[in-house]
Amino acid sequence: MKRSHAPRPQGSQTIYGLHAVRVMLQKHPQRITALRVTERRDDPRIRELDELARRQGIPIERVDAHRFAQQLGDVAHQGVAAQVDPLPPWSEDELLTALADEQIPRSPLILALDGVQDPHNLGACLRTADACGALAVVVPRDRAAQVTPVVRKVAVGAAETTPVVTVTNLVRTLKLLKDAGLWVIGADAHGPQRADEVDLKGGVVLVLGAEGAGLRHLTRQTCDWVVRLPQLGAVESLNVSVAAGMLLYEAVRQRGG
Amino acid sequence: MKRSHAPRPQGSQTIYGLHAVRVMLQKHPQRITALRVTERRDDPRIRELDELARRQGIPIERVDAHRFAQQLGDVAHQGVAAQVDPLPPWSEDELLTALADEQIPRSPLILALDGVQDPHNLGACLRTADACGALAVVVPRDRAAQVTPVVRKVAVGAAETTPVVTVTNLVRTLKLLKDAGLWVIGADAHGPQRADEVDLKGGVVLVLGAEGAGLRHLTRQTCDWVVRLPQLGAVESLNVSVAAGMLLYEAVRQRGG
Repeated sequence: MKRSHAPRPQGSQTIYGLHAVRVMLQKHPQRITALRVTERRDDPRIRELDELARRQGIPIERVDAHRFAQQLGDVAHQGVAAQVDPLPPWSEDELLTALADEQIPRSPLILALDGVQDPHNLGACLRTADACGALAVVVPRDRAAQVTPVVRKVAVGAAETTPVVTVTNLVRTLKLLKDAGLWVIGADAHGPQRADEVDLKGGVVLVLGAEGAGLRHLTRQTCDWVVRLPQLGAVESLNVSVAAGMLLYEAVRQRGG
Repeated sequence: MKRSHAPRPQGSQTIYGLHAVRVMLQKHPQRITALRVTERRDDPRIRELDELARRQGIPIERVDAHRFAQQLGDVAHQGVAAQVDPLPPWSEDELLTALADEQIPRSPLILALDGVQDPHNLGACLRTADACGALAVVVPRDRAAQVTPVVRKVAVGAAETTPVVTVTNLVRTLKLLKDAGLWVIGADAHGPQRADEVDLKGGVVLVLGAEGAGLRHLTRQTCDWVVRLPQLGAVESLNVSVAAGMLLYEAVRQRGG
């Protein structure tokens, strides 16, 4: 696989929680550099993790529960944490290669953010994209938030599993994704269709604009469909990560959960 | 209508944007204490606002665009802002009185947050609840975020239109709402039904728990249904405001948008 020229993230990242650590053990065991479990935890879910780690040849370090909690801070760690090599960003080529890969789902779901500058919003979008099974999140290189330590923290582990694709020209990338057989669906407060009126069951790219500005003109023109989300109240727009959540939810719902 | 004993918010609040100001002029003109439009704005949407304000007897102040932008900061103000008397919180009695009011929708949508402590999450939930036409947001008085300046800011105006009901005992309030004919629907990562498998078209209270902890045991027992939201990835849970957005979206979708 070709490698991107984007800068590699430095240092290892901490992920925590039974579910996140189990997924990492199953999908990317080679990226785990250390695995810690608090001393007194012993139950079926921990034993399952233990067995998984043993099969992968990864030693589990038993650590003092109090010290463990101090190191991780006030998070839902469930007594389990792993150090992992950070997920490198994907290049556009890597995204297109992944789409051609027979192992990925036949109807990939991709999230694209058109000029989202707030790192909290990018982190929140990554977290939701991961929960909804998105293949990747596409962001433009310029005038847009990139993956930083703040983004990784807000994404609570999703930045280590859902790749971010940084592209030079979002419209060009959307066109390449259309050529690859995906539908491009933009969200806009004044979109002609409701999100549930458009078929999101095939391979789709869901495109969200920046708050206030919305989709840029050229991005909007590139969309096959532009859909609106609920706007029944007084506020002018939804938060972009909430809008992304609704649209990703709708795609997952149409696919039967 | 009976008045709550909760403390009244102090000082006037700024709302901005054509849509938010128009909604306030239509629904709560008596709460507007000042209305400002930048000097050079003159187009059909402004003239419509002008006409609305004239009918309500509210003078429009024309202000210098540069100074206006400086006062409001980097927000999507569209050259329009209003000072409004803050929306007082509702008491439980006021909520129940509102439910009996024939003017409100026959199938009210209420959001309840079970111990959400982060003011950003409360603000984001208020913003989404407003966009989805929710009647009110219910929060417990103890160990939960209340409406503060930070919450108002994150809610971008929704705190001035969607009332927050602060209650002493959330489970008791949920039971009163059930007695009033509403269904209580909780969200949980391990809920037995998908959200779209449960009928949300009638009057419903959607209940979200705190991140990590989730719904408290007694709250969960009080729910008529507990539904799950997408959890297809590595992250342990959705952000509570994104989960609230998905569930509110699903209710709006079932009601036909």
